[in-house]
Amino acid sequence: MNDAPPTDADLLAHAVAEARAGLAEGGIPIGAALVQADGTVLGTGRNRRVQMESATRHGETDCLENVGRLPAGVYAASTMVTTLSPCDMCTGAILLYGIPRVVIGENRNFVGGEDYLRSRGVEVVVLDDPECIDFMGGFIRDHPSLWNEDIGVED
Amino acid sequence: MNDAPPTDADLLAHAVAEARAGLAEGGIPIGAALVQADGTVLGTGRNRRVQMESATRHGETDCLENVGRLPAGVYAASTMVTTLSPCDMCTGAILLYGIPRVVIGENRNFVGGEDYLRSRGVEVVVLDDPECIDFMGGFIRDHPSLWNEDIGVED
Repeated sequence: MNDAPPTDADLLAHAVAEARAGLAEGGIPIGAALVQADGTVLGTGRNRRVQMESATRHGETDCLENVGRLPAGVYAASTMVTTLSPCDMCTGAILLYGIPRVVIGENRNFVGGEDYLRSRGVEVVVLDDPECIDFMGGFIRDHPSLWNEDIGVED
Repeated sequence: MNDAPPTDADLLAHAVAEARAGLAEGGIPIGAALVQADGTVLGTGRNRRVQMESATRHGETDCLENVGRLPAGVYAASTMVTTLSPCDMCTGAILLYGIPRVVIGENRNFVGGEDYLRSRGVEVVVLDDPECIDFMGGFIRDHPSLWNEDIGVED
């Protein structure tokens, strides 16, 4: 039995599993998980632009939707884990719910609202995870138009 | 035949209709519409926290989801119309898609990311509409816990 709290790398594994599931579905491989300090996973999600023809189901927002309605105090004791630096929408969703800590797999393929999160008092940890860098980079190379659509960039 | 472009008040009417539909469903009365300069309505939406047990379907995000996947250039030629000042999540969604103009019914009952939108180059117009102020204020008075949940505030 191991009572040690989970490491950030342990937490990231939940988000990576979602990203890999998305990739297997033909989707954009970005995953997320909302976890508590003791490692309890409140829920997970993944980008579903392709799978649901969705303009708002990014990794973090899909996660929040899957977790469902929660009282503010639960968000305030949680960490959002995501495989990729959060876009403006997901940054805003984290701020809306007062989630105080964000663990990011990588920000080499995309840098989102990290500075804004920090300016609003959120702790941001970037793991620079080679696996996340690899599958996201590969996806962007293979599907540039889909990726541009997902981040609102003219193709 | 009237070829004059629609006024901002004309545009707001689409969002107000959604908010009133939400109120009739027992939902939080916030509505939104994504419109083009000539008045063409790309789609509308309303807060569906109650109706769909959703943590991410605010007025603006529900609107963007209903509109569906669009190329960046369409967002860039659109205006987001909303009955209430947009929360952080909806502010971020507007920024993600590069929507250059936001028309807001009122900001007396809640002030969201207006300054941040302006700092990122978005034109923000606040109409201070008495009807929007009235139905939102009434809802908050009657359902304070639900409203606090919607904006991530401890009850």
